Amino acid sequence: MNESSDVGLPGGAISLFDGGVTSPLGFLAGAARAAIRDSPADKLDLALLCSLEPCSAAALFTTNRVRGASLLLSQRHLAGGRARAVIANSGCANASTGERGLADAEEMARLAAEKLSLTPQEVVVASTGVIGWFLPMDRIRSALAALHPTREGGLDFARAIMTTDTVPKSVAASVSTNGGRYLLGGCAKGSGMIHPQMATMLAFLTTDAAVQPDFLRESLRRAADESFNMMTIDGDTSPDDMVLVMANGAAGPAEPIGAGHPGAVLFQAALTHVCTHLARELARDGEGASKLIEVRVEGAADETDARRVARAVAGSLLVKTAVYGCDPNWGRVLTAAGYSGAQVREETCRLYLQGVRVFADGLPQPFDEAAVREALASHEVTIKLEMGLGPATATAWGCDLTEEYVRINSSYTT
Amino acid sequence: MNESSDVGLPGGAISLFDGGVTSPLGFLAGAARAAIRDSPADKLDLALLCSLEPCSAAALFTTNRVRGASLLLSQRHLAGGRARAVIANSGCANASTGERGLADAEEMARLAAEKLSLTPQEVVVASTGVIGWFLPMDRIRSALAALHPTREGGLDFARAIMTTDTVPKSVAASVSTNGGRYLLGGCAKGSGMIHPQMATMLAFLTTDAAVQPDFLRESLRRAADESFNMMTIDGDTSPDDMVLVMANGAAGPAEPIGAGHPGAVLFQAALTHVCTHLARELARDGEGASKLIEVRVEGAADETDARRVARAVAGSLLVKTAVYGCDPNWGRVLTAAGYSGAQVREETCRLYLQGVRVFADGLPQPFDEAAVREALASHEVTIKLEMGLGPATATAWGCDLTEEYVRINSSYTT
Repeated sequence: MNESSDVGLPGGAISLFDGGVTSPLGFLAGAARAAIRDSPADKLDLALLCSLEPCSAAALFTTNRVRGASLLLSQRHLAGGRARAVIANSGCANASTGERGLADAEEMARLAAEKLSLTPQEVVVASTGVIGWFLPMDRIRSALAALHPTREGGLDFARAIMTTDTVPKSVAASVSTNGGRYLLGGCAKGSGMIHPQMATMLAFLTTDAAVQPDFLRESLRRAADESFNMMTIDGDTSPDDMVLVMANGAAGPAEPIGAGHPGAVLFQAALTHVCTHLARELARDGEGASKLIEVRVEGAADETDARRVARAVAGSLLVKTAVYGCDPNWGRVLTAAGYSGAQVREETCRLYLQGVRVFADGLPQPFDEAAVREALASHEVTIKLEMGLGPATATAWGCDLTEEYVRINSSYTT
Repeated sequence: MNESSDVGLPGGAISLFDGGVTSPLGFLAGAARAAIRDSPADKLDLALLCSLEPCSAAALFTTNRVRGASLLLSQRHLAGGRARAVIANSGCANASTGERGLADAEEMARLAAEKLSLTPQEVVVASTGVIGWFLPMDRIRSALAALHPTREGGLDFARAIMTTDTVPKSVAASVSTNGGRYLLGGCAKGSGMIHPQMATMLAFLTTDAAVQPDFLRESLRRAADESFNMMTIDGDTSPDDMVLVMANGAAGPAEPIGAGHPGAVLFQAALTHVCTHLARELARDGEGASKLIEVRVEGAADETDARRVARAVAGSLLVKTAVYGCDPNWGRVLTAAGYSGAQVREETCRLYLQGVRVFADGLPQPFDEAAVREALASHEVTIKLEMGLGPATATAWGCDLTEEYVRINSSYTT
């Protein structure tokens, strides 16, 4: 866990810990290998998550106009704000697969429902991987039969949804309130095709707090705006991205959290905290990445501008390659701010690379180039731009662009 | 020259030929080495272009909010629609350089004006290279003193504005009309930071036709919309991009071409033709590129959508890496169309890679994968997407993304 893992707030405290989607009470998960694509024999690729209790549920979906079959089905199933299980696979996106793809997604929901004694409408289906391939349903049927969700299965779930990710991303949070304690858990996969507004990204969040569906949806939107939507890896978005949260209330009898509830602010903070942790981890493990880049923008004219600038800088290929090469080529940062669409005045900008001021008052500032190069060799690089125009701030996360990104993506289907 | 170099139109014909900015009558150019940055001893980096006659002139400038000193000065000088000379340098962008940068740009204009017996206001200044460095004015003064523009200097001019370009881009066109013949010439530099709406791109166009300033500006905007604004290399745009056209009327006494003039359509076609040729050459020589990618969109709902889709596909890192790896991963093309912002319906899309249909009727189409892989190994890759929604078409150009792009850009200032 990083240094910001603990947060104190009026009315409670949030503490991150190593855990995942089965950390909150009443959630079980597990994974199996269906050999959906040719991958190492120990690569899990089919995952199941379920709640012992009914759940409020909310999700955000890709903004891509091309939408995969699993995603279309899940949108329908989640329309009522309820869900109780997730079946997910990696290796095949089940996108651009027409009627047959939709039938396959429906069968996945049905198979999971039968196994868990639920209705298919209570099951969310998520698929990630190559576009334009059909799911090998026979292998999925066999693998699912051998899969047994447990309280300890959260990490296997996180592993099974990975594609080009090199490490699973999983975290949990303990939330202490005046009225008791509840937990949040989450996992995510990313790696390539990652950009604000959902990318080749799946994230699953669970909580044993009781939360009203409407409030859950609004909380998820706000949390995603500050986390997943502030992260970019390569500017591409996929047809299958979704972020799902399920709240089962298993932490104990309580008035469900909703707008105006005394625990609402704390729940929002905890959900945002978990999402931000996962978003940073996704950026850090971007395809081929060797470094996490954090871009902090302060003093923007308004929040929209702050976000635009932070995302443009984090997404600039020239900034990303410069960070990779430890090259303090700060002009590329100003340039990205300049084309972000935000109001920018060079005369009022101050720019810092790893805390060292390199530009201020409209002029290059003298700095110790060797020292900055060395500082840029860190696994985490912070770029801070003070814009001097207003009160708004934003933070975005990205990663460096390396030869390895090109190697991975020039032969993905092979 | 490529196969489309000759175009017949009612009232005339356009023929491209090897030439450049000094092909039209009355233009002289030359270049010298000022050693603006540490580069091979034979790298020209200071260039001068002038017309023996007064010119109508028009220019397009970067949309970046951060604008270099040379660009700001040139905007002022071109406000009246007249110009007679260009002084350009590579190696240093003279951007983010404050008052001193502006004074340096003014001195460049003054030095060129003195040499050519013009007023500084008749001189356009263009700079490209590293941001945040000051120009070495002493070296520029000495180099300019030794520079002598000639009728044969067009190619040297094209060479001197190159940064990471590997080859100069230069072309000329002969336009035969009922009323006589005139010539156009052009050169451009690009390589990185290239994206629609101007990038690290400079292009200079000349003609010995007589053209009214207002019409010249409008013609340039239209030509750029179909050429330079449909080209993307890495999504970054720079503070210094400009496209300039100068028309000196030296081809002979004639009524200046303007709106409604019988030669207006032909002039527009010729200017667009020259710009398109240069745009393709810029894309082909993108930083680290091994292939030119041409994306043709047909059947879009409207022109805006057609352009959005073509540019999104040409700009997708995942499409670019797949093309590099000869990987027929066509799902990435549909995905890019999906996030382009345009109206997209998978069911009506037909997608072709190098002429082979890979997706239609909402379904993957069987194709000979080995044959398509081999076809993708060509130096020119054509992706065609028929959208089936309307009459609009657009073409965009880009290049593949290679390890070499990362290598070049991870150590640019060093």
